[in-house]
Amino acid sequence: MERVLARDLKKHSGSKVMVEGWLHKKRLLGGLTFINIRDRSGLIQAVVKDKNEVEKLRGLQSGTILRITGLATEEPRAPGQAELHDVNIEVLVAVSEEPPIEIDKPLSHKSDNLDTLFDYRAIGLRNIDEATIFKLRSELLRYIRDFLYQEDFVEINTPKLVAGAAEGGAEVFKLDYFGKEATLAQSPQLYKQIMVGVFERVFEIAPAFRAELSATTRHVSEVTMLDVELGFIKDHSEVLDFIQKLVFTVISRLYKEHECDLKSLKAPELALKADFPRYSMKQIHEMYQKETGKDTSKEVDLTPDEEKWICEYSRKNDGCEAVFATGLPESKMKFYHMKGEEGTARSADLLFRGVEIATVPQREHRYKELVEQMKKAGIDPDNPGFSAYVSAFKHGLPPHGGFGFGIDRLTEKIIGLDNVKEAILFPRDINRLTP
Amino acid sequence: MERVLARDLKKHSGSKVMVEGWLHKKRLLGGLTFINIRDRSGLIQAVVKDKNEVEKLRGLQSGTILRITGLATEEPRAPGQAELHDVNIEVLVAVSEEPPIEIDKPLSHKSDNLDTLFDYRAIGLRNIDEATIFKLRSELLRYIRDFLYQEDFVEINTPKLVAGAAEGGAEVFKLDYFGKEATLAQSPQLYKQIMVGVFERVFEIAPAFRAELSATTRHVSEVTMLDVELGFIKDHSEVLDFIQKLVFTVISRLYKEHECDLKSLKAPELALKADFPRYSMKQIHEMYQKETGKDTSKEVDLTPDEEKWICEYSRKNDGCEAVFATGLPESKMKFYHMKGEEGTARSADLLFRGVEIATVPQREHRYKELVEQMKKAGIDPDNPGFSAYVSAFKHGLPPHGGFGFGIDRLTEKIIGLDNVKEAILFPRDINRLTP
Repeated sequence: MERVLARDLKKHSGSKVMVEGWLHKKRLLGGLTFINIRDRSGLIQAVVKDKNEVEKLRGLQSGTILRITGLATEEPRAPGQAELHDVNIEVLVAVSEEPPIEIDKPLSHKSDNLDTLFDYRAIGLRNIDEATIFKLRSELLRYIRDFLYQEDFVEINTPKLVAGAAEGGAEVFKLDYFGKEATLAQSPQLYKQIMVGVFERVFEIAPAFRAELSATTRHVSEVTMLDVELGFIKDHSEVLDFIQKLVFTVISRLYKEHECDLKSLKAPELALKADFPRYSMKQIHEMYQKETGKDTSKEVDLTPDEEKWICEYSRKNDGCEAVFATGLPESKMKFYHMKGEEGTARSADLLFRGVEIATVPQREHRYKELVEQMKKAGIDPDNPGFSAYVSAFKHGLPPHGGFGFGIDRLTEKIIGLDNVKEAILFPRDINRLTP
Repeated sequence: MERVLARDLKKHSGSKVMVEGWLHKKRLLGGLTFINIRDRSGLIQAVVKDKNEVEKLRGLQSGTILRITGLATEEPRAPGQAELHDVNIEVLVAVSEEPPIEIDKPLSHKSDNLDTLFDYRAIGLRNIDEATIFKLRSELLRYIRDFLYQEDFVEINTPKLVAGAAEGGAEVFKLDYFGKEATLAQSPQLYKQIMVGVFERVFEIAPAFRAELSATTRHVSEVTMLDVELGFIKDHSEVLDFIQKLVFTVISRLYKEHECDLKSLKAPELALKADFPRYSMKQIHEMYQKETGKDTSKEVDLTPDEEKWICEYSRKNDGCEAVFATGLPESKMKFYHMKGEEGTARSADLLFRGVEIATVPQREHRYKELVEQMKKAGIDPDNPGFSAYVSAFKHGLPPHGGFGFGIDRLTEKIIGLDNVKEAILFPRDINRLTP
């Protein structure tokens, strides 16, 4: 008999079917044993009346793998509006030990102790809510790629073992590479710009590594990054238009196609418009001071409180939780960004639900200007780690811009999790290298 | 005026259009200057008659970025069956230095010196044929994911920074992780099996790292791996059926949708059937001996020559260049494979065009048996690096199987390249950490 999945059970009402899955929950109710079977598509409720069948379950714990045949029967109160009657149970894999962490409670009941959560991650992910987070994350990746393919992008895979750090300042992991020193790539920045010279439009979704010494909730040492770079832009605003379209398209689609999943996770209601409001840093400082009395005009960046405030402001006044902060100060500029006017860089931050999710600059594509900016930043353009990069400009790169953003962070903010680590299957931080 | 891409030029015949791209080639023919402009979709030929316009191009080299307006005109001999007349040229980025490597010749003319090729990779990739390789690679990734999503798989991202090596023997890169020793993941093996307990069907496409001390053409230290794992299988043959369907679907689709690209790269003709022939190792040894007189029956594995021979045999006799070698010997088995009958493992090699592209085993899913096999392989199941893995089995994993294969290798074999490194944008080996 062919296996029927939870999501299809109702369709088979009135027929005898076979299901397979994990024993998820077992309870007695009015003298009957109800069990929930979990498969990749959801839960199946089975009503076990027969004493012989009940006996087969004695001593078996959550995780036990069962094959059950029975009569599929409509039942509005059961998951998927159907359940199994007259069941015959076969134990495929018996589990006699209780799970080390509760997996049959909604996520809001889960322990606040993140360490316990991650210590038993291999089992805890079997919680339906936990699994839903990562199903949504997988969908998000799919939607992002769908969008980028439609926009004529080529996917690239660039090396994670590199000779030097792309950006001097931040902490990098170093390792011995056959007697040479290698570092783990913090970003594919240099490679994606080189690849604009080949394909104009490229993207990569790949791990990036940061030896973050901080032990806060926001710091992890391995992230999954989406990196995008597009050439032949007219101006900086085309890059903003592009990320806006990307973010609007994929988040809207997720909310549309996974409404139930997002509701079950108590994700915030979505307020997003196709055109994200654009405020300059200066404007935001002024608006924020007017409202709170706090003077932030001397800050190089938006303060964390300002980031929250402007997103909240925009949600209320513009009906959009995503906002651009434009006109970032030149002092915050990387050597590969393009200078703007009046001490600004041609760069903006994209904020969503209170945090920055991406910096969105135009690049300096002119060879001479780039080399100057490298030198000013203390980078030797003749360094072998940079020679390929510099040569791409010497032999012609068009005006281009791009951005990178963390898939983990985006997943966290969309679902409304407390901590970026909850959006990572097996997070890595200063204290954690397992599981 | 909106930019028109090379692939759309013919559609605009009779209209004045604007194109942008790289100066790819410039030549004089019968007193006229012909230039080729490269954009992300192909080449555009422009005929420059006006002396003032010709003058603008003086001293400018390949890589120069141009904006050209002109009259789109049908011309069967031009790339894309159209060219530009009455042109007006604007130089967006001037390049005065010749490219360090020829980029306007077909791939067969390229230097056999791989070191030169990779030293100037950032520019060499602008060769149309080189770029086509990586466009096809991107498509291959897209087709693989399309197939897996349709088959109900969830995409996962597992950590590349891990506490120990999944497989004791092979060389691993080690690094200091905040005072602890970490290694770079050689494969997501343990994680994908854990995730079968959550989603049943999972895949990942990600970098994997191997500190290969060999300097042969086949050895690179960073590869892009597709890893697939599927649970609730009936038996080992279901895993073979699955990889067969995957490989057949994506390669057939690539040959169908990119016939011209593959022809321009002189890729071999495809001989593939939906059902790949399956021969046991023993059969292959016997058939090979009968044909060549060489006795390979004592080999643990197929010899490289046998791999070539059986693929060629199957191409001729079965009309299929992909073959399974089944009944791999138990002595070649990893601790997480399932034992078969008569000294074999429940494992097969998938061969394509003369080389093994994947090992396709059923896993040992039974907790007790797995722990025994770990101990026998010298691995301590209580080692913290393995505790999450072992717990997944203790708390119930269904019968499952899976495989991993290199995207680089597959791309190489499909296109018919000489060297796996030619299918990698920026390859890494014992001697090469840049660009």
